[in-house]
Amino acid sequence: MQCLPPTTLITGGAGFIGSHLAQLLASQGQRLLIIDDLSTGRTANLTALPAGSATFIHARLSDALTRQPSLLDGVREVYHLAATVGVGRVIDDPAAMIRNNIHETASLLDACDGRGVTLLLASSSEVYGPSEAMPLSEEAQLLFGPTTSPRWSYGMTKALDEHLALAHHARGGLRAVVARLFNTIGPRQVGQYGMVVPRFVRAAVEGRDIEVHGDGQQTRSFCDVRDVTAAMTALVGGARCHGKVFNVGSDDEITIDELADRVIALAASPSRKRHVPYEQVYGPAFEDPRRRVPDLSRIRRAIGYSPRHTLSDTLTELVALARREKPVAIPNA
Amino acid sequence: MQCLPPTTLITGGAGFIGSHLAQLLASQGQRLLIIDDLSTGRTANLTALPAGSATFIHARLSDALTRQPSLLDGVREVYHLAATVGVGRVIDDPAAMIRNNIHETASLLDACDGRGVTLLLASSSEVYGPSEAMPLSEEAQLLFGPTTSPRWSYGMTKALDEHLALAHHARGGLRAVVARLFNTIGPRQVGQYGMVVPRFVRAAVEGRDIEVHGDGQQTRSFCDVRDVTAAMTALVGGARCHGKVFNVGSDDEITIDELADRVIALAASPSRKRHVPYEQVYGPAFEDPRRRVPDLSRIRRAIGYSPRHTLSDTLTELVALARREKPVAIPNA
Repeated sequence: MQCLPPTTLITGGAGFIGSHLAQLLASQGQRLLIIDDLSTGRTANLTALPAGSATFIHARLSDALTRQPSLLDGVREVYHLAATVGVGRVIDDPAAMIRNNIHETASLLDACDGRGVTLLLASSSEVYGPSEAMPLSEEAQLLFGPTTSPRWSYGMTKALDEHLALAHHARGGLRAVVARLFNTIGPRQVGQYGMVVPRFVRAAVEGRDIEVHGDGQQTRSFCDVRDVTAAMTALVGGARCHGKVFNVGSDDEITIDELADRVIALAASPSRKRHVPYEQVYGPAFEDPRRRVPDLSRIRRAIGYSPRHTLSDTLTELVALARREKPVAIPNA
Repeated sequence: MQCLPPTTLITGGAGFIGSHLAQLLASQGQRLLIIDDLSTGRTANLTALPAGSATFIHARLSDALTRQPSLLDGVREVYHLAATVGVGRVIDDPAAMIRNNIHETASLLDACDGRGVTLLLASSSEVYGPSEAMPLSEEAQLLFGPTTSPRWSYGMTKALDEHLALAHHARGGLRAVVARLFNTIGPRQVGQYGMVVPRFVRAAVEGRDIEVHGDGQQTRSFCDVRDVTAAMTALVGGARCHGKVFNVGSDDEITIDELADRVIALAASPSRKRHVPYEQVYGPAFEDPRRRVPDLSRIRRAIGYSPRHTLSDTLTELVALARREKPVAIPNA
């Protein structure tokens, strides 16, 4: 018996990206079910949702599915974003991260199997590891450092999650599409898990030194979270996308030094850059890719993907939000 | 309370390699606990063990550990060999293989944690994926094909198992050493999971065509299982080896065509080689590494590793055993 209108499940929906996705889907009138264990997500991220648009369950995904097998009744689309966040937490306890990322995904896929669900797996550019084959294409080989360096285990769990989702798709249990997210930025992202833009914006607004890890000549490409979430819904809606892997992000490269300079200028901040060796932050023998640029030709062809937010737009907004959040005295600001 | 003499646990101990390891350890007077779910292992493999030397539990490892938490009382050394075997089974159901290989290892490591155990993880040369950096060194980067090709998921689970074991080691919960096994051959290996030597020997002894996958110019390096198991016990016994990864195998390369010719000659068989395209065996887009040669310098330095069995010795023995097992009429044999 199926009396309820179709529901969309967002795992990790109280996190940075998940909460923007919730906002987008709620604005389209969708009924939402959000599950988050609040290990890094925050209920405050959900306050912007229209009243009555979402049911929130505070639980680990696998626990919620075990306790309430009817949870997925009426669910037609699933956005699976729940995962351990941040390289710092990965290095602290790789074993816990590995179990979490694999077990939660496997449990969800099993629970979805045979229900006619379409599932988007939020994967990560970390699956490309230290690859230098720029721009990084979805068909490229995946490269990882040796297993004595725990840093690469995160990307491997994401790649295995992709294998799991694509295997369920291939066996006909559900429709799955994989979104490999590159650096994503926007309101509500926090800096405490090592994310560079919120760290820089916060330091600039508070007039503190901006800590640049390494020599600052490494590059990244930042995409606004609202462009990322719009792409995710288009991938779920596009039947021809199912069973495939898509890079999602920006291919507009910037060095981390330039990023710091841009943030300082936009905030009219007296902050200075300070370069800190990686090993001081993450311990010895830490490696970080020098560049990470997605090849976006596949997603452009598939859904006409074209990000609307420029980096300067987003940074300007983030500086304004950071000022409002915690007013501080900045000379000339 | 600890009244029992120390025990050695072998997971997957009824399998091909596990049963040889059991034989070696039993011959050294060790008390053995063997757990095997008999998904590919066979109790017949254990009939050569001295009476009373081993306790056998027919169960999935994680189930056995849940049912009987005291199972590890008195266990001082663990050889973890239990895993899904054979590329064919991986492609049939990659999701089941991923869950099995990760979950069983994670459960075992958790159960061993804090017990003062030394654990050897049997990993695989599959962690090198399609890498062409011969000879393959333990410090080399790990390479995998795209996630749309399920074939590479097996190597990724093994690499993540290595991460899990090394993470437990780094946190002080146990001492772990990783053995990356390359192609291993010997008595009791069966051909039904795609292993090339028992397939060839059986066909030669029965006078049937020998099916060579691909063009036969791909190479492998085969090591006798008794050299492999002797190396495993030396790695567990060598305290300086703990926390490290070691290739275990032979660096003596042979093309698969030459291997077939050698087997035919040793068996004085009328069999002929027949080349079968990979896609006919494993489906479309199947990839197999052209070469896979270990760099053995690390294990040579660490334990003075030097295999005692030549390929011809082992093949001669296997041909003789295959004849005894099932006598068939071969002209001139």
